[in-house]
Order: sequence, then C-alpha cells, then structure tokens
Amino acid sequence: MTMGAHDKIRAIRWHENRVRLLDQRHLPDTVAYLDLERSDDVAQAITDMVVRGAPAIGIAAAYGVVLAARATRFTSDWRQAIEPAIQRLAAARPTAVNLHWAIARMRAAIAMLSLDPATSDSTMPDPAMAHPGRELLAEARRIHEEDIAANYRMGELGAALLDGKSVLTHCNTGSLATGGYGTALGVIRSGFHTGLIARVYAGETRPWLQGARLTAWELVQDRIPVTLLCDAAAASLLRQGDVGWVIVGADRVAANGDVANKIGTYNLAINARHHGVKFMVVAPTSTIDLATANGDDIDIEYRDAGEMLSSLALRECGATVWNPVFDVTPAELVDALVTERGVVHRPDGAKLAALLR
Amino acid sequence: MTMGAHDKIRAIRWHENRVRLLDQRHLPDTVAYLDLERSDDVAQAITDMVVRGAPAIGIAAAYGVVLAARATRFTSDWRQAIEPAIQRLAAARPTAVNLHWAIARMRAAIAMLSLDPATSDSTMPDPAMAHPGRELLAEARRIHEEDIAANYRMGELGAALLDGKSVLTHCNTGSLATGGYGTALGVIRSGFHTGLIARVYAGETRPWLQGARLTAWELVQDRIPVTLLCDAAAASLLRQGDVGWVIVGADRVAANGDVANKIGTYNLAINARHHGVKFMVVAPTSTIDLATANGDDIDIEYRDAGEMLSSLALRECGATVWNPVFDVTPAELVDALVTERGVVHRPDGAKLAALLR
Repeated sequence: MTMGAHDKIRAIRWHENRVRLLDQRHLPDTVAYLDLERSDDVAQAITDMVVRGAPAIGIAAAYGVVLAARATRFTSDWRQAIEPAIQRLAAARPTAVNLHWAIARMRAAIAMLSLDPATSDSTMPDPAMAHPGRELLAEARRIHEEDIAANYRMGELGAALLDGKSVLTHCNTGSLATGGYGTALGVIRSGFHTGLIARVYAGETRPWLQGARLTAWELVQDRIPVTLLCDAAAASLLRQGDVGWVIVGADRVAANGDVANKIGTYNLAINARHHGVKFMVVAPTSTIDLATANGDDIDIEYRDAGEMLSSLALRECGATVWNPVFDVTPAELVDALVTERGVVHRPDGAKLAALLR
Repeated sequence: MTMGAHDKIRAIRWHENRVRLLDQRHLPDTVAYLDLERSDDVAQAITDMVVRGAPAIGIAAAYGVVLAARATRFTSDWRQAIEPAIQRLAAARPTAVNLHWAIARMRAAIAMLSLDPATSDSTMPDPAMAHPGRELLAEARRIHEEDIAANYRMGELGAALLDGKSVLTHCNTGSLATGGYGTALGVIRSGFHTGLIARVYAGETRPWLQGARLTAWELVQDRIPVTLLCDAAAASLLRQGDVGWVIVGADRVAANGDVANKIGTYNLAINARHHGVKFMVVAPTSTIDLATANGDDIDIEYRDAGEMLSSLALRECGATVWNPVFDVTPAELVDALVTERGVVHRPDGAKLAALLR
C-alpha cells in the first residue's frame, strides 16, 4: 500500500552512526531531534519519553544495543561488557513488552555471532557486513523495517473491518509510536485512505496528552482531519451513535488476551461495550507475551505526581495523586485483535496460542 | 451539624452593597475576590466562570437581580427597566436550571412587591426593610441561606448511605459550587466527619479542572485528605474494589430522573454500574426541573476549543475540538438521588413527582 500524503512521519532513524529521535516531549510546539551516541542516553530517552509507544521503544532499544556493542570496540570480552548497558535499556520502562522482545532479538543476534562468527559471516554476501557491529545494526534495522511492514499489513487487515462510520482512538499509536505508519493509527490511515472512515476522534489522553499533542499533530501533518475531545467526553460521544469502532494499540497482550495499554483504554472498552460500539486492539505479535498469563501479572507503571500536575501548570497543593499510566482491558471486552499475522476475533488463550504457533 | 475545621470556605458573599465572588479561575494559585456592583458584571462573571456550580450561579444571579433593581433607583417603571438585565443573567449559562429557578424566585418576589407594596411592607416587622431593594436583598439572602441549610441536610442524608469504603467524586460540588458546604462534597464532608469514608478520590475533571484545581484546594483547606486522579483512570480505580460510592452533583435533573452534570459524569455512572459500585447524585430540589421531560431536552453547553487547549498550554494545531462541558446520565444508572427533602432510590418520574408534591 502506498499512502503518499498520509504517511510522511518517521520518529526514529539510524543516522550517521547515531540514533536520531524526534523529541516527543516538545511536540507540537517544537519539532526537534536528538542524536544519541551512547546506549545509556537511549535508555534515558525511553524513560523520559523522548520516544514512547511500545513498538518505538523496542526499536530504539535495539539501536541502543548496537551503540552499546560498538562502544566496546569488540574487544574479546565485549559480550560480557555490554550486559549492564543492555540491562539498563531493558529497565527503562516496565509495561511494554516490545522493549524486552526487541532486546531478546538483539541478544539472539549476539549469540549467533558468539556461536560461530564464521558461519554468521558466511550468510552475509557483502564482506563489509562481516563485522559484529554491522551485523547487529542489520538486525536492529530488520526489527525496524519489519515493524513498518507489520503496520502496513495490520492497516489493511484492520481497515477491512471498518463500516464507514466514525472511529475513536486513544493515546498515540502512529508513526510517532512505532517504526512508522502506526498500529491503531495505521488502521486509521488505511481506513481513511480507502474512504472507510467518516471522521477520526481522538481522546486527549491525560496525563501526558499523547492524543492532544501527538495524534493531533501527526494526523494534521498527514492531512487526516481529526477532532479532539476530553477523555471523559467519550461516553457522550459513543452514545450519539456515529462511532462504529474504538481503535487502540497495546503495550502488552497477555496469553489470555488481556490488554495493557495507555490509561483510559479500559474505560473506553467498558463504554464501547455499554453502547454497542466495537472495540479493536491493533498490535504486532511482538506485543503478545505468552509468558504473562493474564492482565493481573502485568507490571503497571505509575509515574509521579509532578508529571500529572505540571501539564496542568499546577503546583502540588497538598492533595496526593494516583497516577497509573497504563490499565488492563480484560479480553472479553475486545472484539478484534489485529496483528500482522491475522485478525483474532474475541481473543482468548487458545486463539492467541494458535496465532503464534 | 457543626463541622468546624471541615467547613470554612464561602465563595459568595453580599458585602457592602456588592456581590463578592471568590474568583475561581485563579485557584489554587491565587485566592482573590471580585466585588461586583452591576448585574451585568455578575452575568459576565457567571459566563466567564468566576463563579460556577449550579447552586452557586443561582445564588449569584439572585444577588445580581438585587443589583439590577437597585440600579433603577426604584423609579416608577423599575419592574420593566430591570427586565433586560434579568434576561442577561438568565442567559449567562444554559445548562444549570438553578439559575432559572433562582431568577424565578426573585421575579416572584418582585411580583409580590408589585401586587401590593403595602401588604408586603406589613409582613416586615422592621420598617427599615420596607423598601423594595431591601426586600429583594432579603429574598436573595434567603435563597443563599436555604441552600446552605439544604446542603447540611443532604450531607446527613447522603452520609447515612455510606459504607466505610472510599468514595470517588467528580468536578467541584463543594462550598465553591454552592452557598456553602456543598452537595456531593457536603455528603463527603459529613461522611468524613462521621468516619464513614476511608479515602476521598477526586477526578481532575477536564477540561476546566474543577477537580484538580478546586476540589483538591477546597478539601486541603478544610483538612480532608484527597487523592487526585485523571478522569480516565477511574475505571481502573473502580476495578480495584475499594470504592463503595461514586458521588456527584447535578446541574439539572429532568422529570424522569435523567441527570445533567459536568462532562465525565455519565462515563463514571457507566463505570460504576459495570463494577458494581453505587452511584449517588446529590442535588437540592431546586435542581429538579419538572418542565424538562428527560435528558434529551436538556440544553448541553459547548465551550470553545481555546478553553480546552489553553489549560494544556496548547495552541490550536489544525485539529478541531469537540468540547461539551456537560453530559446526561440516564436515570437508570442512578442508585440514589439525595435531596434536602429526602433520598430517592432508583429515581424515576413517579418518585420525583411524589418528592416535589
């Protein structure tokens, strides 16, 4: 699928031996990039939400492993030497499983080099690629490119479910949150492109305002009209009857189909079911974590009061703050889980296991 | 009931022949008052949300009528002369019916004066009260004092329903939103005072942040511990099981029991029902409008995009904004409607008609 005007943004690039990240903390006011040379800077950028979105932080971490490996200059103990840096990358944020998935892939690539560098080299037709640093970079690039390809595929599969009514999305799941194109926003891009979406509504997504700051900016850049609303206005919107699907991404899908995603997602799922609106989760299979039995086992990140209040220009006033930034939507509220391997209707443990076999 | 430390705030006062309003636009950063001498300034203050909250804007408008009447110096045509000013007060905001109720009471007081000033005078033991301006002021003060008395009574009645678990509230329904003490926050004050509330949770209440700015400030001032959360986090909170009641106010209750209240209330009602949490609406009978058959007939106020975005320090970015600031909760989601005349369980048209007879 070629999207032209509707697919122009990329938030992560490998550029001149550094990781170039679009700094999402300053959007939409300022479009600025950070060029990072050290893996610890990548870990900090993930923690500080320079880059966010489950697939995007996985890709950033993969490039971070490349930087960590290069920093060792591949001395004899380099595989041991990079371990602390990899662990810092893995600990940068707790909820999204893509971070661990991407690091596991990079570890596997390292292990392949370790087992038999000669064999590894022999798979590379270009002798210039025979260096471990280049092989690791190639693996990080594959992770990045495969993510974009998965998003195009999910865009097609998800758009095929649409009904021509309006859609409501939450948080930012677009080019800014992924390697490019997006998960839920990828479906929305595809659906808009093919005329299957009347209007795109986006919740502002407190506390970090991914909807108001990022999704609005991203869609306006890509010429897809978008209407913002306060998160708590969604119930009124869904009651009006012109929204056919709520479409969201995921930070982790447990083995039973429970979905961890940005705070407010569970709220939307309950409201969608109450109003007879369909609820779609769009996530690559790298987001499915069979090692997590169900939503109760997912580590939900709490961020501090200051981050919630500062976006309101409020000082702490003596009230305490409860600030979970993810929630868990039980599988029974999900009508369709769209992955690059296919659509799972009413996901459950058996269906997910079959999908991943 | 005497509440001492838990009931110290008053947002509206008649002071030296003017209406003194605590300017709620600048809370919690600045505690500043506006002294208004002209009824049109009161109308503007209501529109601009210097004063907000259904009972409070009714009280402010009643004092506004006094100012309008005084400005005529009670020349022979004063009843006609104040009509435009009264209409501007009535049009200051559309959704809360208390505004119209208070103005209707002031009109009735004017009519009483009109019919037979001598009789009217004779009911006043103090000759100094025999002037129309003083009689109208006395009526406005009665509206104000009756509101506070109703709130104390609702506080007792509502607190009697509590179960010792935590409560979640929305918007600001306290001393800042009423003549004093509050509706939903009055129940919470009473419940906290009598040990029937484990913890008070308050939604921040986008877009105007009545929860984060006003309820947090008001409860901290009155030494009631409060925990703020983003509105869309309420579903996760209710799922945890330690909240027994969601307690909210109302801007208008239709004849069938449908409740118009701050945007997000309907969302909470759906979530409460989904999680088996009880849902309480606290409103004086002045909020019940038998002339409004049901929620579909309630005029929902939309405010402009700038008001939603400016609190995020966002400029308009090309996205449109859908910004309804009230929503309608169907009567079937309300477990208890607490009024000063008694508690209506599972309100419907017959029960409300009986209550008001």
